[in-house]
Amino acid sequence: MFEVSCLHLAANLWLVAIKAAFPLPPMNLRRYITSFAFISALASCAFAQPLVSPEVHADRTITFRYNAPGAKEVLLYSEAVTKAQPLQQDKQGVWSFTTAPVAPDIYVYSYIVDGRRVLDPANPVIKYNLFSTENQIHVPGPKTLPWEMNDVPHGIIHRHHYRSTIVDEERDVWVYTPPGYDATSAEKLPVLYLLHGFSDAEDAWVTVGRANVILDNLIASGAAKPMLVVMPRGYGNREVVAGGWAILRTPGWQQAWQNSNARFGQSLLNEIIPLVERNYRVSSDRNARAIAGLSMGGTQSLLIGLTASDRFAWIAAFSAGGMPEDYDQHFLGLKDKLNPDLRLLWIGCGTEDSLITGNKKFSAWLNAHGVQHTWKETPGQHNFLLWRRYLAEVIPLLFQESAPAKH
Amino acid sequence: MFEVSCLHLAANLWLVAIKAAFPLPPMNLRRYITSFAFISALASCAFAQPLVSPEVHADRTITFRYNAPGAKEVLLYSEAVTKAQPLQQDKQGVWSFTTAPVAPDIYVYSYIVDGRRVLDPANPVIKYNLFSTENQIHVPGPKTLPWEMNDVPHGIIHRHHYRSTIVDEERDVWVYTPPGYDATSAEKLPVLYLLHGFSDAEDAWVTVGRANVILDNLIASGAAKPMLVVMPRGYGNREVVAGGWAILRTPGWQQAWQNSNARFGQSLLNEIIPLVERNYRVSSDRNARAIAGLSMGGTQSLLIGLTASDRFAWIAAFSAGGMPEDYDQHFLGLKDKLNPDLRLLWIGCGTEDSLITGNKKFSAWLNAHGVQHTWKETPGQHNFLLWRRYLAEVIPLLFQESAPAKH
Repeated sequence: MFEVSCLHLAANLWLVAIKAAFPLPPMNLRRYITSFAFISALASCAFAQPLVSPEVHADRTITFRYNAPGAKEVLLYSEAVTKAQPLQQDKQGVWSFTTAPVAPDIYVYSYIVDGRRVLDPANPVIKYNLFSTENQIHVPGPKTLPWEMNDVPHGIIHRHHYRSTIVDEERDVWVYTPPGYDATSAEKLPVLYLLHGFSDAEDAWVTVGRANVILDNLIASGAAKPMLVVMPRGYGNREVVAGGWAILRTPGWQQAWQNSNARFGQSLLNEIIPLVERNYRVSSDRNARAIAGLSMGGTQSLLIGLTASDRFAWIAAFSAGGMPEDYDQHFLGLKDKLNPDLRLLWIGCGTEDSLITGNKKFSAWLNAHGVQHTWKETPGQHNFLLWRRYLAEVIPLLFQESAPAKH
Repeated sequence: MFEVSCLHLAANLWLVAIKAAFPLPPMNLRRYITSFAFISALASCAFAQPLVSPEVHADRTITFRYNAPGAKEVLLYSEAVTKAQPLQQDKQGVWSFTTAPVAPDIYVYSYIVDGRRVLDPANPVIKYNLFSTENQIHVPGPKTLPWEMNDVPHGIIHRHHYRSTIVDEERDVWVYTPPGYDATSAEKLPVLYLLHGFSDAEDAWVTVGRANVILDNLIASGAAKPMLVVMPRGYGNREVVAGGWAILRTPGWQQAWQNSNARFGQSLLNEIIPLVERNYRVSSDRNARAIAGLSMGGTQSLLIGLTASDRFAWIAAFSAGGMPEDYDQHFLGLKDKLNPDLRLLWIGCGTEDSLITGNKKFSAWLNAHGVQHTWKETPGQHNFLLWRRYLAEVIPLLFQESAPAKH
């Protein structure tokens, strides 16, 4: 009975909270809230004391908390735990779970409350996603970790808005310029085109992958050449991401997927690269152009990069997914160009990622046809824990005079 | 019974969905999903057909949908409806509600499912907020509406990362440069410092307020002078936004609020303005510097702008909230400087906003002390529907040779 009334009260209080808070500013908000006597009386129900969540302890365990009196079940799904973990409820209706000590890293997590995903209201750090936005928690580590913010010069992220006539959509492309980039200098810098995964957007390599922080650190230490990094939106049509995850189960989806990758390739070559080369002091020499991406973006890097090896001399694919498997049809005609053209062809995948099978198969096909490349098998799954490391490993290889050995 | 099992199944399916989808890419995701026979069998439970939500109809009604078999109550809270509206469930467990025809605009909304806020999984457009991220829906209107994207040259948003020693925090500041901004030109442009409201962040004026679109349109039509717009994070300490909405009910919060506004002012004058003037071709003349903001940002614009009228000649406050009410103590010593110093002092508030009382009081105090200003009372509430219009009204007034009459 308490649960039910509490559920309904919670609903109303949320509305009050949203209405009060969401438009109204603080001084007024306080008057507004305290004008509801019953809220004070039942504060523990929906307006409890401020919660700290997640809390990272000195021993690098993490306590996740969520205030939900009346909930039947609160589950934590996170890269910080090996499987979904149930939170336990205390007398005040605050649910919590504490992990074992975890390695310093950045972890994505979600709460599933009675079967429905909710964001952690106590944690403003989110991982944006087209279908299912979640939260992130940073467990700080030594400054030598490539994604740790250090006291070094920082590059700038530029967000350009343009209309893609090829995709028929208004969209943004994000451009990272390295520290000290000078639009007035004559020096022309190289460019990495860095592609996100399916269901993510152009922000993901910055807001989750920390590409700008990784570049800042590698450039500061001299490990990487100063370069621009261009992060476009990687969909070639609307259909491929229309309607949430369920879209994947619709008959037309696979066709939309192939069309999307093809169209995106046309847009990259004919709209995005020209936009970048109009707006920035960058080289248009193929030896100064790289393409890399994760998952869907890894597949696109291979499809676009190998097909247009006259435009890209450096290609890297992280945990590529959704590759067409008729390699001969796509790549056989190109194979003789690739060794002379490519300075780097880098393919990596996590050993705990079921996609490793397909990636191994493609690496074997390249070997069978004498196409030199780096094949990397790494302990890890299909997530940004691996991709941040891959980016930090590949960036120093790019645009170097002496290209690394490909085997 | 169905409800309960469905709730639990939904929980598990969500985990599958997250696990499958969240790391795994599409082709593999499909294999992965279809490998769960029971998902196909019970697809209607958590993995239904793709939903369109919200759907804007030709008559400008909006249908909001949410797939939640087993839910007891789904409520819509939105600027598009006058009060919370219950959605109705169909046989498939899809909940929906259709509004009356609404005016072309951009509306924020949330679903409250059994007392808990959830994002609309079918709508990737969110309104980010530190405490309660929601969704947005755009009801398109005539291209003359200032926030409608038109085929005009677009400015660029630049995101600078810096360490604020005054706030002791790593943070971003967003900078809009107008179309055709040329870092190599000798021309120095004016700058508007544009401040967000409480619980929002530096992105809000772009991602919800559409400030870049409004500027693009007004500059293209010749109504506004080309200018930079600087959007910093408006908190002067961590405490003021720590722990979700409940923080507002804690004893120390009011002190944190006052300290936050004071510290933010110091950071704006001593860190943010210098950063902007180091990085861009902008004038450092007070006549080329404006400050404006909404709600908390309106109060900050008045506190900072009036106190530092030697730095700002143009001040605008939209629906200012949380103003200190001892006006004499804060402003009496300044009043004689303000008429000669200020080219614009613009104060506006919605008539349906309970904050209008305080704003009227302040306008009356200014009148009583002969401080010239524009007072604007507008039908409207405390939200971006009003603030987008206020921005579009104020921008053309800024940096004009002939300052508008202040009464």
